[in-house]
Amino acid sequence: MEEEPLAKRLGRLIRRLRLEEGLSQEEFAERCGLHRTYIGFIERGEKTITIETASKLAQALGLSLAQLFIALESLDSD
Amino acid sequence: MEEEPLAKRLGRLIRRLRLEEGLSQEEFAERCGLHRTYIGFIERGEKTITIETASKLAQALGLSLAQLFIALESLDSD
Repeated sequence: MEEEPLAKRLGRLIRRLRLEEGLSQEEFAERCGLHRTYIGFIERGEKTITIETASKLAQALGLSLAQLFIALESLDSD
Repeated sequence: MEEEPLAKRLGRLIRRLRLEEGLSQEEFAERCGLHRTYIGFIERGEKTITIETASKLAQALGLSLAQLFIALESLDSD
C-alpha cells in the first residue's frame, strides 16, 4: 500500500490536535497568525507547507517541531 | 538575543550531518533527488523549504523528520 502523502497525514494530525485543544479553525488561525482558509487547506492536506509554517502550527498547539513529527510518526506506526 | 531563523539553523545542521556522512554536496544532492545548487542554498539558510523537502533531506541522511528536528532542538539547547 503506497504511503499517504506527508501533507495529508500532517493535516489530519493538525486537525486532531486542534480539536483536542477545543479550538475552532478561526481561533487556531489567530493563534498561528495564519488565515482561517489556509488552515482549512492545511488540514485537508491540500497545501505544501514550509518548515516555518509547520513551526507556527506546532507552537500554536504548544509543541516543538520535533514533538509534532514524533506525534506524526507514532500515528504512522499505529 | 533574538533567535536565529529556523532555515539558517536547519541549514547548518544539514551541512554538519552531510559532512559527518562524508558526502559532497553533489553526492548528497543526488541522494536527495535535488539539485546541487539548491543544497547550497539550503545549507546557507537562504531557501525556505517545505516539509516534503525536509523529509527528503532527512531520509538522505538516514533520519526521520522527527529525528532531524530532535537533532536541531538539541543543537539549539547546546
